[in-house]
Amino acid sequence: MTAPARAFEGMKAIDGTGDSAVLTELMAAVGRNARAAARALARAPAEQKNRALSAMAKAIRASKAAILAANAEDIAQARNSGMTGAMLDRLALTEKNIEGIAAGIEVVRDLTDPVGAVMDSWTRPNGLTIERVREPLGVVGIIYESRPNVTADAGALCLKAGNAAILRGGSDSTHSSRAIHACLVQGLRDANLPEAAIQLVPTRDRDAVGLMLTGLDGNIDVIVPRGGKGLVARVQLEARVPVFAHLEGVNHVYVDKAADLAMAKAIVLNAKMRRTGVCGAAETLLVDRAAASTHLKPLIDMLIDAGCEIRGDDAVQAADKRVKAASDDDWKTEYLDAIITAGVVNGVDDAIDHIERYGSHHTDAIVTADQAAAEKFLAQVDSAIVLHNASTQFADGGEFGFGAEIGIATGRLHARGPVGAEQLTTFKYRIRGTGQTRP
Amino acid sequence: MTAPARAFEGMKAIDGTGDSAVLTELMAAVGRNARAAARALARAPAEQKNRALSAMAKAIRASKAAILAANAEDIAQARNSGMTGAMLDRLALTEKNIEGIAAGIEVVRDLTDPVGAVMDSWTRPNGLTIERVREPLGVVGIIYESRPNVTADAGALCLKAGNAAILRGGSDSTHSSRAIHACLVQGLRDANLPEAAIQLVPTRDRDAVGLMLTGLDGNIDVIVPRGGKGLVARVQLEARVPVFAHLEGVNHVYVDKAADLAMAKAIVLNAKMRRTGVCGAAETLLVDRAAASTHLKPLIDMLIDAGCEIRGDDAVQAADKRVKAASDDDWKTEYLDAIITAGVVNGVDDAIDHIERYGSHHTDAIVTADQAAAEKFLAQVDSAIVLHNASTQFADGGEFGFGAEIGIATGRLHARGPVGAEQLTTFKYRIRGTGQTRP
Repeated sequence: MTAPARAFEGMKAIDGTGDSAVLTELMAAVGRNARAAARALARAPAEQKNRALSAMAKAIRASKAAILAANAEDIAQARNSGMTGAMLDRLALTEKNIEGIAAGIEVVRDLTDPVGAVMDSWTRPNGLTIERVREPLGVVGIIYESRPNVTADAGALCLKAGNAAILRGGSDSTHSSRAIHACLVQGLRDANLPEAAIQLVPTRDRDAVGLMLTGLDGNIDVIVPRGGKGLVARVQLEARVPVFAHLEGVNHVYVDKAADLAMAKAIVLNAKMRRTGVCGAAETLLVDRAAASTHLKPLIDMLIDAGCEIRGDDAVQAADKRVKAASDDDWKTEYLDAIITAGVVNGVDDAIDHIERYGSHHTDAIVTADQAAAEKFLAQVDSAIVLHNASTQFADGGEFGFGAEIGIATGRLHARGPVGAEQLTTFKYRIRGTGQTRP
Repeated sequence: MTAPARAFEGMKAIDGTGDSAVLTELMAAVGRNARAAARALARAPAEQKNRALSAMAKAIRASKAAILAANAEDIAQARNSGMTGAMLDRLALTEKNIEGIAAGIEVVRDLTDPVGAVMDSWTRPNGLTIERVREPLGVVGIIYESRPNVTADAGALCLKAGNAAILRGGSDSTHSSRAIHACLVQGLRDANLPEAAIQLVPTRDRDAVGLMLTGLDGNIDVIVPRGGKGLVARVQLEARVPVFAHLEGVNHVYVDKAADLAMAKAIVLNAKMRRTGVCGAAETLLVDRAAASTHLKPLIDMLIDAGCEIRGDDAVQAADKRVKAASDDDWKTEYLDAIITAGVVNGVDDAIDHIERYGSHHTDAIVTADQAAAEKFLAQVDSAIVLHNASTQFADGGEFGFGAEIGIATGRLHARGPVGAEQLTTFKYRIRGTGQTRP
């Protein structure tokens, strides 16, 4: 048995037993194995990584029955422990989901390999040529909750960018994640890549998360949490390594006085109601006071007709009796539901100030035909994504053309916005000379 | 008096008194003032920032006498407390140094403004145009030791990139830093920029550093330590915000069998001896076994003639009796002195493995006429800067053409290598549509 396989079997055996000394030792081994794998991956040609990704997709398809059986076990346990509808939905896999997982791996395979790309190059007066070249980040730790497909999505994307992945799935999806992980390992083996390139760590023992957050002796370069606010907040608070995460998307649509009403209605409806549970969903509607008399009531009617609850300031409440009063907290709330906070502001400057005060620097949009107002909004709103005349629901790596994403980052360092393969790389400087020395 | 000026006067008054409650409160105010200033700076046009930089340089020149007087006070105190030669040298300012500080600010002024630059843009099939645009990082904390010129260098570079700076100089240079800081504030005022764009915090109270490392309630986005290993290690260990730093530069020159001897001699001599105290100085020489019979002895003779002590492995010791035995620690040591560790390796693969094992991922060079060996080294050595046929002492923002740098980063995230104005920015996505909604 290989070292990573031994570590994996060891962890499976102790998972949930609370044996923290053994866990600590095994997790340290996971870190070392990941670092060694990352070194090998950094040198692996695109073709070899792609061969592994093809083999992974193939293995997933060939293992449909096994994955479904593992998933049935998870579902049964979840039901026994009283899991509710939405969470059960996230956990449940169907044949179609599994085909989607395999196809998703192939989408990642077909992306351009970011590693080795020359981002910039120039020649100095002394004849030195300097290139800035993309390199893998190293080892990426991913901590996620019930969706078992993240096992494959995150593993594949990390591999594409030449990174080793340490995956920590939710305890609810233990069996499903292990079954999917086995297919990924099969793919790595088929392409002669190290098995430790994608490792799965104990899902039941909460200490495993704590150990990952310490960085495993410098063997994790970045951590990506994927899940609810509780998880993300814990990771952001405790991690001793950099984190790519967004805590929440308190996203705004500002309807300017120069907004075309039909366009504003289409964008507001889509931004709020297309899918209310995604991080790019709008949570606050701001309407320019100068357009309130013409635009506010139609927007309110449209939202309420679509089944959206509105919590408004005085002006919005005055416009329609069905509007509830917004509390101070509502302006900062990510509902992820068919609820919106709505207010009237005094033009684009006031809208920008409001967003600065209450927003979460995720995604914000302006609807206007006034180019100057649009440019001001795009320049001054300090969010990862700012849009003019488009829905906030475009906040998505796929919609950006990234092919796949591991999440959306609202931090300011390294990755901001959708985190795709390119964002999972770093760079180095490659300098070529002819014997130059520094005077 | 403005709020930042009040905070500054308050901190001056309590600095060194150990009044930690007041310090905590004042530091929190510094953070809030910095964030507010950063927002204003992010919107400031290049011309206004440049006007401030010009005014700062002018104020520095006009205040030569005051700065020298302040510096004399620092020097007297340092002498009293028994400071030694090299440290005193770093602390001492001359008229020429002060002119250099003013000229350095003008160099920064004349750099291209990185803010607002479009890094990338593309159009999606649905007609959305997406741009990735450079934005300021926000608030940068700089923690440095005795060199008072860092006050101006760091403050100017942060301003150029649209960032607010919170500066924490060394206690030894308190008076000098305050005198220089007063000139920077004068420049900000002259250009109608917020004074809190560059704030100086207590230099005597070690708690001020600890408070900065907490991030001041989210009001510091990144910390840059500049100083000795003790400082950098403490910052890396304790910081709860991202850090751009290098702990040490254990840099290698590998002389391949296909190296031209004259070129190898010139590069090794320059890499080691041009300036031994800089982070780009070579600390280890590796010679290919296949070239040892022809290249090793001349390299040893040259280094010893130049006054360099050599600590070697068995092969290097065998080549010259003056070579001392290298301990295991020597291979990992950044001497910053006229000492080098030297060893014989079995070709480029062995050299790469050695650098991976003992290096610090800073700057490493290969000397060879063999293009394949060079490309392998450039691809596989995992350092911020890798060079072919050039001296490691080119590891410097100025030599890269960045105009100025705030340091060299060996971390993998966001900034790697020289940290210039561009590296002190982040980006956002600006999306322009014509009413697009997501299907």
